[in-house]
Amino acid sequence: MKMSQIGEDSFIERIRETMASNLAEGVMGIGDDCAVIPLEKDRLMLLSTDSLIEGCHFIKDKISGRDLAYKAVMVNVSDIAAMGGRGLYILMSIAMPKETEESWVSDYVEGMKEACDEVGIAVIGGDTTGSKEGIFINFTIVGEVLKNRVKYRKGAKEGDVICITGVIGDALAGYEMMMKGEIGSSLFEKYCRPKAQFKEGEWLGGESSVTAMMDISDGLVQDLTRMMKASVCGAEVDLEQIPLSEAFREFARKHKWSAEEKAITSGEEYCLLLTVDSAKYKVLSEEFEKQFGRSLYVIGTVNEGLGVNFTKKGQKVKIESEGYVHF
Amino acid sequence: MKMSQIGEDSFIERIRETMASNLAEGVMGIGDDCAVIPLEKDRLMLLSTDSLIEGCHFIKDKISGRDLAYKAVMVNVSDIAAMGGRGLYILMSIAMPKETEESWVSDYVEGMKEACDEVGIAVIGGDTTGSKEGIFINFTIVGEVLKNRVKYRKGAKEGDVICITGVIGDALAGYEMMMKGEIGSSLFEKYCRPKAQFKEGEWLGGESSVTAMMDISDGLVQDLTRMMKASVCGAEVDLEQIPLSEAFREFARKHKWSAEEKAITSGEEYCLLLTVDSAKYKVLSEEFEKQFGRSLYVIGTVNEGLGVNFTKKGQKVKIESEGYVHF
Repeated sequence: MKMSQIGEDSFIERIRETMASNLAEGVMGIGDDCAVIPLEKDRLMLLSTDSLIEGCHFIKDKISGRDLAYKAVMVNVSDIAAMGGRGLYILMSIAMPKETEESWVSDYVEGMKEACDEVGIAVIGGDTTGSKEGIFINFTIVGEVLKNRVKYRKGAKEGDVICITGVIGDALAGYEMMMKGEIGSSLFEKYCRPKAQFKEGEWLGGESSVTAMMDISDGLVQDLTRMMKASVCGAEVDLEQIPLSEAFREFARKHKWSAEEKAITSGEEYCLLLTVDSAKYKVLSEEFEKQFGRSLYVIGTVNEGLGVNFTKKGQKVKIESEGYVHF
Repeated sequence: MKMSQIGEDSFIERIRETMASNLAEGVMGIGDDCAVIPLEKDRLMLLSTDSLIEGCHFIKDKISGRDLAYKAVMVNVSDIAAMGGRGLYILMSIAMPKETEESWVSDYVEGMKEACDEVGIAVIGGDTTGSKEGIFINFTIVGEVLKNRVKYRKGAKEGDVICITGVIGDALAGYEMMMKGEIGSSLFEKYCRPKAQFKEGEWLGGESSVTAMMDISDGLVQDLTRMMKASVCGAEVDLEQIPLSEAFREFARKHKWSAEEKAITSGEEYCLLLTVDSAKYKVLSEEFEKQFGRSLYVIGTVNEGLGVNFTKKGQKVKIESEGYVHF
């Protein structure tokens, strides 16, 4: 058997099972956007790590060093936002061939600085090594959150409404444009320089009506499935309620994509996916709109079933693609 | 200009300079074995990250998945030990091709578990992704230490004695043996399954006579140079005092190596390098020997100069090789 047959989720599950006995009380390990470690009083430390691999997550000729580093920071910050927390520090590992150009390296450092400044975090360590071929990047982020503000994947309850904090689909279109060399558009920008919703995440952490939260990194289909599995619930999503940008609609039309069905498989979106107590949704969404100047989009409801269903005009829609599959 | 001309240290220095303004008070970033973040009361959090890259740090056909994971954990634990701290948690990122065999993956998870159990730490998170080619591993470790026990690279003072906590050279010989397929010897074992000196590190953290500490990962020449640079001191090391194992001496004879001169360039040793107040060395070393059943080896003294000199029978020796160079 090979890794392609084992799959990412079952490999992670294997590690989780093997390592479970080593965990001290109150420490939450593998299975959410961040690991959670209790600190003094009501503070929790959040930790997350993400790799970006050349040829797999990015193509060096297609993305600048600046954008790549910017994105790597934002991807990590998004994991902290997904738990309702605030990012503090980053450790940055990079392995690169010794032929890597100085201009690329300078760009990279600048992009990292830019993103860190935007979010208010600091790089406090890392590892720099050579590689034989290809660039490998790994960022680890440290954040914190108060105990009464932390959000997990596991809190969704039957009857909750399912919301997302932004349009989806742009990253997938942006990726396609990048691959064709069509750079500079808003879609390309969304893919290459995603904005982690760190303000939204921290704000939503303070709202008790939010029952579960995570970020969309592997696509709504996979990520919502993970959230429902963690919450031991099911979900029904109405494709007609999926918010899309005008640019994405235009791109989908041009490429004869079924817009919503593509959007729900788009990974690397880095908006937030959350479930909200339905009785409190109205108040929450009004407050959200006041804070952030846009809607908290409802896309479906949590039910008692297992698994996630997608409907269009009341009819169940079969989803062909799962989204991003690592193996 | 390329990365091979910039070099690892000046790249790290560039990041340190760029990011310095983002650091909160009391937080120590790039420049030591770990980053240091103040927690409540007198606790400090320690963070370190290390990558192992296929084709660069390891060759998949030459080392088992079990040994590789074991080593990756120990490399990280060693960084915490170097600061006088105790390791608590690890985040493990791995990128591998989808063709990676299940047996390798199982082995890998077991090796990780084995090392974690030995040291008393837990894996609490990570990232698993595909790679196009080659295996890329990154571990991040979280540890802690009390404020009055933390050791830095920067504390060495003129007149201090320089010590190491174990023999060196074995890892280099072990590497050579591995490359020739001569597996199973004690030297091979030292290279493939290094033991982090976590008990020694934590114990030395409690000794106020220890003025500076770090681990030997890039070879004594480079690492001592870094320590002296951080301490704004110089050092003189007597090659005849370098402790060597019998197996290494034998290996050196067989390969016509100048044993001590090779040993001081051997990276991945993961024993500890420290400086000790000379007036207190005798008491410390006696206590160390009682605790660990072996000597705290004196190899030289700190002086007011800059740079590190090596002598043999009172004569200065020119060192040809620097040890492990990443670019």
